[in-house]
Amino acid sequence: MFISFEGIDGCGKSTQARLLADALRAEGRDVVLTREPGGSLGAEEIRRLLVEGAGERWSAETECLLFTAARRDHLERTIRPALAAGQTVITDRFADSTRVYQGATRGDLRGFVDRMHDLAISVEPDLTFVIDLDPATSLRRGNARGGVEDRFESLGLAFQQRLAEGFRALAGEFPARVRLIDGTGSAEDVAARIRATL
Amino acid sequence: MFISFEGIDGCGKSTQARLLADALRAEGRDVVLTREPGGSLGAEEIRRLLVEGAGERWSAETECLLFTAARRDHLERTIRPALAAGQTVITDRFADSTRVYQGATRGDLRGFVDRMHDLAISVEPDLTFVIDLDPATSLRRGNARGGVEDRFESLGLAFQQRLAEGFRALAGEFPARVRLIDGTGSAEDVAARIRATL
Repeated sequence: MFISFEGIDGCGKSTQARLLADALRAEGRDVVLTREPGGSLGAEEIRRLLVEGAGERWSAETECLLFTAARRDHLERTIRPALAAGQTVITDRFADSTRVYQGATRGDLRGFVDRMHDLAISVEPDLTFVIDLDPATSLRRGNARGGVEDRFESLGLAFQQRLAEGFRALAGEFPARVRLIDGTGSAEDVAARIRATL
Repeated sequence: MFISFEGIDGCGKSTQARLLADALRAEGRDVVLTREPGGSLGAEEIRRLLVEGAGERWSAETECLLFTAARRDHLERTIRPALAAGQTVITDRFADSTRVYQGATRGDLRGFVDRMHDLAISVEPDLTFVIDLDPATSLRRGNARGGVEDRFESLGLAFQQRLAEGFRALAGEFPARVRLIDGTGSAEDVAARIRATL
């Protein structure tokens, strides 16, 4: 099974991906916990170009190409081999992030994003959890983390609000695969909602 | 005017691009001499991922995505602004290199390369010089340069021979734009052939 976690920066999806991986492992499942951009040796090198530096460092089109290059490497070298070996793959972000970050927020690029995905990726997760949390709260959490990986946080609250709307819209667009999860309360509260949905 | 130089590693195209830029400048033209992968701040950072490291570091598909990302940045930030300002742009490699390196030599990828180009680049040079030189001679020159940018040279002579055939085939595929130039003799000999053709 291939499961992705999605949502805006600081919504808690990385924590939830880890908690779900821990819970499934405790049940005896063989779980690969991975993330995007990154999740393979090459993709982690591309990650640095994407999450560090100035917000306007790349155009949305170039950014989409770089995310797709990283995703292709991640798919070839980590996700496909794990699924072929019968492992459960849980990824912190996948193609929905590109649909929302580049496709929904920066000009009319959704068609470009979709054609790029069809050409180079085409795979979808079996199940996607979108953690839904107020952008002001999420941004505060993201900024509190500090570090150099703050390129998208640096684009500000209005940007994060457009992202949050884009992620909510995914649940309507892909009803068979995407589940919207209330991200308020403690990490354990959110994890319980995810387990109940799973 | 937008001019590209193409050919296998070590064929002399970088030297010829520079000599043509010098000659046109001496005639009073405003020339931007650039190169791929690279030619803009972001694209030069992507270049490092492409020309250094092991030959099998990336799959051909991921490699095509990275080259296209670098090309998109180069186009947006260097080539288009220069052409809009009335400058002559001379580039050492452009999309033909991806057609040959990824499309002609590594599996049946030319369809993938073409769809990617149509989606993200679509621009072609007005004129392309392909410097045609024996792969054994070229490889010797390329290896003699040394340095860390030897990822494609490291793929060996048989690979360079498939490349040379791919570059020759371009002249037949794009007869209005591509001119095949004999790369034997001194740099001045080759430059004279290029000026005569121009």
